[in-house]
Amino acid sequence: MSEQLSGLTDMDPEDFRAAAHAVVDQMADYLATVERRPVMPPITPGSLKPLFPASPPEQPEPLAAILDDYRRLVEPNATHWQHPGFMALFATTASAPGILGEMLTAAIGQNAMLWRTSPIGTELEQVVVDWLRQGVGLPPEFDGMLTDTASTSSLIALAGAREASGFSAAAEGLAGRDEVPSLRIYLSREAHNSIDKAAMTLGLGRASLVHIPVDEAYAMRPDALAEAIETDRSAARRPIAIVATVGTTSSTAVDPVPAIAAVAEREGLWLHVDSAYAGPVALIAGRRAPFAGWERADSIVINPHKWLFTPLDASLLLTRRLDALRTAFSLSRAYIEAPDGSVAPRDYTDFTPQLGRRFRALKLWIQLRWFGLEGLRRRIDHHIELAQEFASWIDADPEFERLAPVPFSTVCFRYRPAALRDGTDAGSISERLDALNARLITAVNGTGEVFLSHTKLGGRYTIRMAIGNLRTERRHIERAWQLLRREAAALDG
Amino acid sequence: MSEQLSGLTDMDPEDFRAAAHAVVDQMADYLATVERRPVMPPITPGSLKPLFPASPPEQPEPLAAILDDYRRLVEPNATHWQHPGFMALFATTASAPGILGEMLTAAIGQNAMLWRTSPIGTELEQVVVDWLRQGVGLPPEFDGMLTDTASTSSLIALAGAREASGFSAAAEGLAGRDEVPSLRIYLSREAHNSIDKAAMTLGLGRASLVHIPVDEAYAMRPDALAEAIETDRSAARRPIAIVATVGTTSSTAVDPVPAIAAVAEREGLWLHVDSAYAGPVALIAGRRAPFAGWERADSIVINPHKWLFTPLDASLLLTRRLDALRTAFSLSRAYIEAPDGSVAPRDYTDFTPQLGRRFRALKLWIQLRWFGLEGLRRRIDHHIELAQEFASWIDADPEFERLAPVPFSTVCFRYRPAALRDGTDAGSISERLDALNARLITAVNGTGEVFLSHTKLGGRYTIRMAIGNLRTERRHIERAWQLLRREAAALDG
Repeated sequence: MSEQLSGLTDMDPEDFRAAAHAVVDQMADYLATVERRPVMPPITPGSLKPLFPASPPEQPEPLAAILDDYRRLVEPNATHWQHPGFMALFATTASAPGILGEMLTAAIGQNAMLWRTSPIGTELEQVVVDWLRQGVGLPPEFDGMLTDTASTSSLIALAGAREASGFSAAAEGLAGRDEVPSLRIYLSREAHNSIDKAAMTLGLGRASLVHIPVDEAYAMRPDALAEAIETDRSAARRPIAIVATVGTTSSTAVDPVPAIAAVAEREGLWLHVDSAYAGPVALIAGRRAPFAGWERADSIVINPHKWLFTPLDASLLLTRRLDALRTAFSLSRAYIEAPDGSVAPRDYTDFTPQLGRRFRALKLWIQLRWFGLEGLRRRIDHHIELAQEFASWIDADPEFERLAPVPFSTVCFRYRPAALRDGTDAGSISERLDALNARLITAVNGTGEVFLSHTKLGGRYTIRMAIGNLRTERRHIERAWQLLRREAAALDG
Repeated sequence: MSEQLSGLTDMDPEDFRAAAHAVVDQMADYLATVERRPVMPPITPGSLKPLFPASPPEQPEPLAAILDDYRRLVEPNATHWQHPGFMALFATTASAPGILGEMLTAAIGQNAMLWRTSPIGTELEQVVVDWLRQGVGLPPEFDGMLTDTASTSSLIALAGAREASGFSAAAEGLAGRDEVPSLRIYLSREAHNSIDKAAMTLGLGRASLVHIPVDEAYAMRPDALAEAIETDRSAARRPIAIVATVGTTSSTAVDPVPAIAAVAEREGLWLHVDSAYAGPVALIAGRRAPFAGWERADSIVINPHKWLFTPLDASLLLTRRLDALRTAFSLSRAYIEAPDGSVAPRDYTDFTPQLGRRFRALKLWIQLRWFGLEGLRRRIDHHIELAQEFASWIDADPEFERLAPVPFSTVCFRYRPAALRDGTDAGSISERLDALNARLITAVNGTGEVFLSHTKLGGRYTIRMAIGNLRTERRHIERAWQLLRREAAALDG
């Protein structure tokens, strides 16, 4: 009988040791060779399920067979976020020290929901959150926590705003109450759809979202914001929050936070700053201009699992209003109390929609020490420089057109050959350009060497080159540029 | 200059290989020796933060120094969920094959939000979800997903119920709408506070929760349920969902699902079954009686990171109403579309409040194959047998009193010495028993050999022995019983 059936407990620790060493070699081999794989594998939806048995395994299988299948079925069918040619969306790199952190996290098996269920998980989270706060130059009034994703961080922030508006939504709900008017949240047309998800989840609804027009740089117009608030107030709708974005998802635009903060303060509204992508740039004192005014926010989100090279998942929520978050999410029940009824100074589950919480602080602690803030700054700085260089190539090539400013490390552009350059976007030329660029990105991604994504800016199909993968070097940007020009020329032919 | 400062990318893959082998030895050493540690370390809240530098590290540090600090500062200050003496709350064991899965998950760095961002993450999740569905004997109408925690699974289910009630809450919100009445969700007084959190988050509020009385076995009374619904309807409140629990958190009570399902069907209400803890028992065909009727539910939650020995986090949400979940959470934006605008058959982010999603299917796939369903059944069965045996010891000892039935692997009891056994709980005897049992659990936990938690049942302070840690053997239960009797005798002395 196999070990798996003869035993009634876990794998023997020494068998685990041997298995884990084998797995480490698999992991290191993957990282050493990932560049040879196509970033996005050439497979079609639905083609993978049939490769696996339709019924669950009744009998145990040897680990070697499972790892063989991992190599055969899993690795080739992944989108390789770890590939240096991954320039789509925003990168999530699982850095080597971050992976080591995940390994230790898995083995030590903490649930950091209560101090009692993980003293080190709770207090190391406080340490790391404060290190990051100091690193990005925010004042000590900001406290916070690590969540899974920016969606959850922003949901928590807006739940805080909902409580702060004074309607006791967590206690009384929003439905069937005459005294609760229509509530409104303001955000730019370019804000991320995690805010939409938060409004849907929180019972505010997509209808609560007022999308403010943007200027030519895709930044929120504070005059339009003030106007929208006034319109809502005069219609007896109740503004509760403004979401400003520093580094939007489409074009990494920077909303004018000082002007927006002034509106928020005047109107008594919660200000949430979404800098999930760009936030780590604030580690660099000389690059803090886009973040001016964010210290006036009630809450801020920064994602270590984006531009701090932390394995998914890790999002940092900082806030000056932990009290409102507690009202939104805190509960007590006998079965999670300490035996003597004592209350710990920090139980993180008081501030989150979930009870169970991973020990995310560990990987961040390891990463911050291994890179040092100085090592992180150098890498982020390098990505910004690469993006500036790529943008200069776009600008110098008459066949390409840049479609947005480049405040960080993402370049928005499109191919625009001479035949489609009559100076207007109107009618059929605009449609032909959209179709041409969709073909171009498909062709470039089809090479497997790079993976780009697209968006729409001002109605135009826009290719995004998002630099931020820890393994991306200058040669990968050069190669992407070569491929873009080569495939563009081939489209014309 | 250190590697960390001289380079602009990640750690060299071969350096990573060496570092990861060292980390594996640390992990294996931990697992091999965890039993020698006190389950809950004897530390006080606030004592750990000062052990770490108040300011973030500016310069990189060598990995060896970081791992030394891990051994010195992290390991001794964890609550050891991996310890075989962890019998508190409900166990979360990170099994060896589950840890191997987390290691590979970290290295391959997937974000399983869209098919395109992780084809294998998406389709392997479909495979594993269906394997688990078959394993627990549910019909193929149930589809589903892996989420982080039961809190999120139940939140998603209740968001589905909110949509299914016909008020378009995700689109229009719940506030300021005359046509939306007070909404109501029914659950027993013993239901888990994740449901309270979901109601708070979803804008339904704690006021939407109607806590139905329980019978002497702590199970929901269907007659009281029907009555409460009728009362609400006649007061123009709108019932939308019933939450039945199979295996409550306090005493693992089983709500009568067939009778509750009949009420839900008659009243047209969404039925959500919370079997986060007990669900894995349904892998054993001969032990499915408590789950009778759950196939009539609209949604069901089962947590692999509880009694399936999966590292946190992994919760399984099964539902027959994926359509309602899509209405509750789906959105589209240009920047996450495929370049050609095509739609994948399954993008899991359509059903979740978060966008980013970990590749949780991988660890489950490895675990299910390594243990086989047969290996999992044997272990779960063993835990139930151990609990029955422990309960028989309690029942046979006149100084102890069992306080609830034991349908699964958790035993609720208290110490009740002869002097406090006058047959009533009234007045001072009741208070003295509560205080005595609080002292008993504190003393037993203080030995460091086991870690028990408590709850309140019928107002009585109740000690819980929750068996479900993969590493717990018969000798650990015997030792816990020895310690309970020894420390109880010492209290009297």
